[in-house]
Amino acid sequence: MKSEELCPRFESGMELLSKRWTGLIIFRLLEGSQRFSELESSLPISGRLLSERLKELEAAGIATRTVYPDTPVRIEYELTEKGRALHPVITSIREWAEKWVTPDEPAPTK
Amino acid sequence: MKSEELCPRFESGMELLSKRWTGLIIFRLLEGSQRFSELESSLPISGRLLSERLKELEAAGIATRTVYPDTPVRIEYELTEKGRALHPVITSIREWAEKWVTPDEPAPTK
Repeated sequence: MKSEELCPRFESGMELLSKRWTGLIIFRLLEGSQRFSELESSLPISGRLLSERLKELEAAGIATRTVYPDTPVRIEYELTEKGRALHPVITSIREWAEKWVTPDEPAPTK
Repeated sequence: MKSEELCPRFESGMELLSKRWTGLIIFRLLEGSQRFSELESSLPISGRLLSERLKELEAAGIATRTVYPDTPVRIEYELTEKGRALHPVITSIREWAEKWVTPDEPAPTK
């Protein structure tokens, strides 16, 4: 693929993954479908921001939101095939970060 | 690695990679050391922003800048071992983007 074609796709992929916490949310969802509350309690992130990120992942076709009409209503989030295909990306970032990022390296500022 | 330890490292890694054009600059440098002008002409990015991104990569220990006292002076950028270790990350993003990101998907807005 010529770089002119690659640039926009690569950058779009990076753009999506680069939103703060998106990588970690996908990392969690790779473990299987989860309720909002499960995601919220397992990540150092506000409910509002988590909800925003999940909407973006839905819009990008990376995650789905399923409402189960139980009492109380149950809402679960799950990765699509496109989302699950990010497994090698998330794994390679995790492995690189574990080996090369020192704990005292400045935490994200965004 | 417990998630509490992973979160900051993973997010720091994501934070670094997420800066716009950083992924593509690393992608180029994976091909070998390059002069500023070579990088600038091969990427749709301004000289000012390229210079900023290269300084960030130097500060993060991912790239080095070498000045050759030729006439005119020659300045080359090269990945460090930490930088070259990003090869699987960049490759996995490229492969995912080629397969799953459609050309008409909105280009980055940042």
